[in-house]
Amino acid sequence: MPLGTLPVNMSTTAATPEIAQYCLQTAEAARAASYQLASLDAEVKNRWLRHAAAALVAATDPIIQENEKDLAAAADYGLTDAAIDRLRLDAARIKSIATGLEEIAMLPDPVGEVIEGHTRPGGLQILKRRVPLGVVFFIYESRPNVTADAAGICVKSGNAVILRGGKEAIHSSKAIVKVLGESAQECGVPKDAVQLVSTTDRQAVGEFLSLGELIDVTIPRGGEGLIRRVAAEATMPVIKHFDGNCHVYVDQDADIEMAVNIIENAKCQRMGVCNACESLLVHEKIAADAIPAIAKRLTERGVEIRADERAISWIDNALPATDEDWSTEYLGPTISVAVVGSLQDAAAHINRYGSHHTDAIVTGDLRAAETFTTLVDSAAVMVNASTRFNDGSVFGLGAEIGISTDKFHARGPCGLRELTTYKYIVRGDGHVRT
Amino acid sequence: MPLGTLPVNMSTTAATPEIAQYCLQTAEAARAASYQLASLDAEVKNRWLRHAAAALVAATDPIIQENEKDLAAAADYGLTDAAIDRLRLDAARIKSIATGLEEIAMLPDPVGEVIEGHTRPGGLQILKRRVPLGVVFFIYESRPNVTADAAGICVKSGNAVILRGGKEAIHSSKAIVKVLGESAQECGVPKDAVQLVSTTDRQAVGEFLSLGELIDVTIPRGGEGLIRRVAAEATMPVIKHFDGNCHVYVDQDADIEMAVNIIENAKCQRMGVCNACESLLVHEKIAADAIPAIAKRLTERGVEIRADERAISWIDNALPATDEDWSTEYLGPTISVAVVGSLQDAAAHINRYGSHHTDAIVTGDLRAAETFTTLVDSAAVMVNASTRFNDGSVFGLGAEIGISTDKFHARGPCGLRELTTYKYIVRGDGHVRT
Repeated sequence: MPLGTLPVNMSTTAATPEIAQYCLQTAEAARAASYQLASLDAEVKNRWLRHAAAALVAATDPIIQENEKDLAAAADYGLTDAAIDRLRLDAARIKSIATGLEEIAMLPDPVGEVIEGHTRPGGLQILKRRVPLGVVFFIYESRPNVTADAAGICVKSGNAVILRGGKEAIHSSKAIVKVLGESAQECGVPKDAVQLVSTTDRQAVGEFLSLGELIDVTIPRGGEGLIRRVAAEATMPVIKHFDGNCHVYVDQDADIEMAVNIIENAKCQRMGVCNACESLLVHEKIAADAIPAIAKRLTERGVEIRADERAISWIDNALPATDEDWSTEYLGPTISVAVVGSLQDAAAHINRYGSHHTDAIVTGDLRAAETFTTLVDSAAVMVNASTRFNDGSVFGLGAEIGISTDKFHARGPCGLRELTTYKYIVRGDGHVRT
Repeated sequence: MPLGTLPVNMSTTAATPEIAQYCLQTAEAARAASYQLASLDAEVKNRWLRHAAAALVAATDPIIQENEKDLAAAADYGLTDAAIDRLRLDAARIKSIATGLEEIAMLPDPVGEVIEGHTRPGGLQILKRRVPLGVVFFIYESRPNVTADAAGICVKSGNAVILRGGKEAIHSSKAIVKVLGESAQECGVPKDAVQLVSTTDRQAVGEFLSLGELIDVTIPRGGEGLIRRVAAEATMPVIKHFDGNCHVYVDQDADIEMAVNIIENAKCQRMGVCNACESLLVHEKIAADAIPAIAKRLTERGVEIRADERAISWIDNALPATDEDWSTEYLGPTISVAVVGSLQDAAAHINRYGSHHTDAIVTGDLRAAETFTTLVDSAAVMVNASTRFNDGSVFGLGAEIGISTDKFHARGPCGLRELTTYKYIVRGDGHVRT
């Protein structure tokens, strides 16, 4: 994100006393549950995940009934056909949600890990032990499968979660959370470990964001406007990325066929995602050969090209790029293309205009690869690989609750471990400081 | 910190255009320097630290001359005798500052560490590599030795730093930073790696706090009011602790002599520091024996005791504690004392009223020790050891820039490693996602 586009203050009017009271009680219940969760045995959490998975499948019919209420209202909310399809639950999709919980049960429990430890001269024993963050406030889009997935990830990592799902899926989410809660009571997990915000009032979000004493982290998913509002208003840390203006840089020593394939994949494999490529930089020494080949492939795939003064001469039908193009995440069939004089210029362009999300170099030159990975200030830097690989499952995290472009706490895909912190435990035998 | 004492909005009037421009230029210069620092060889940074140490000693006379200007103005600033003493530099103290830099040179460089890495099925190689945070904005009290120390820690960890020292030490700090800058130019360290804010205008702080795009972290040291203002206004992450309301809990199975010694040390060894004990909790089953013995020792040391209804009956001359006492960091010769019915009650009291900083249990019971360390939600939990041990040098960090009571990013003492983040580096050979 370039300078000058800092968060707009999107504060809404204050919440009513009833909503404020509801939010406070919900957060206090989550805090109390978090203290119980912090000492819960891994096997209890895993038993809940497996029990909930089976219970969701057993509740397929009532869940589908509730989902039909959401589908019936979807047109009123102006959802697109694609969004309605993502909202729809059937037996296969509920089974897939259940499988997701079973997979989380199989992941190692991050809580309790001794990160490091040593004994000091004099005998004081110092340990750094991994512990849960505490309470997670999770704000997400209207896909009901995310409800179960987020609940599973948070509780497995020892955190209580307050789920604020989109109003478009509220009946489906309530039905899923009801099943999760019943399983929790069966399995010895605190009932307030997973709470769904029952009001869809937008003021509730602002109210929760003010409760920094009770909520340890907020994770917003959705459009950039929502995430900027959350980041500006939150009184607690936020795990987030605003956008994904990802670059592929084709170095002078690139294999052109490899570059064409990587750019095609990074741009076209899924256009609407945060790790898709939005901008292409090409070294001037290879531009005359690389740009026509890349442009041909992208044009075949229906991608519109916006090119700078030098690049445009090698491309049929390209539009001239404006300065705004360099900062734009198109999330669709458009790409910006610029010619750069050096690898250093490419890195400077990426650091200035990019999102610090995912950026790639295509090169056969070892020193160029090293320099690029050092200079580019992004969560993930790819060498001869598509930007599309920045993903929790690809990185082996097993489950992912979001991707962070911040440098603080967690960077890149965030899984179970990124929802933890540590505490120092110091053991003495009457030790005093002199 | 209890609920209801959330940050007060302490915004001041807007900065003048000149100050705003100065802050922006300073931050942009720091950002540019940070990109150079990120790829600087450890040996270059160490050479600078050693060179600067020698240069500071060589500049003893001019530094003392500048220090005398600060001392001459100290009375006008209303500094206490103790504060004036901390401000004073002589040859021995300048030598000690130099030794501090030499010690930082000897610490391992955290930058470049491969935190973890693996090869995925299909051959994609994934590394998590430790990298600097980037730009640190450091706000601190009027001790000139902190100027050199913070500069050394930040640059050693690959970060550019903007130093905002107290006006009371501005001449001394300028003299020190001048020497550091000259050494930087000799040794190949970017000259803007260390910048001292030249204006003592308070509005400059607010202006820097608005530059979240250019500054990666703010670290404020000083009074609670300042830190709350910084936390409320900052648009970037803050490493901080507001206060240190630290507890010692004497369990029913405690060795009373050990408890007396630990409490005396935790309360009295240094009264004005954040890891001093401010509140004592005693299990009801040991209260009749433990409280008189503890009270006797504390009274001998001149500590005033504020006790709850039960504790007061065992203490001569105690005052009744009010609810406010449980939340109070006295930073002086006062302690609050309460009797609790169980270890769980003690942990609940600490989590409610404490600062999540440092809390200790005295016990001979293994299960009690384990339960306490799990339940108490603090940066450091001590077993049979004084709270005074929560400290970077005790924990083996080698150098410390602050102590965090937050759970995000870094908790407890923060040294070189806590000023870093990581990036994912992914190496393929033309890999695309299918």
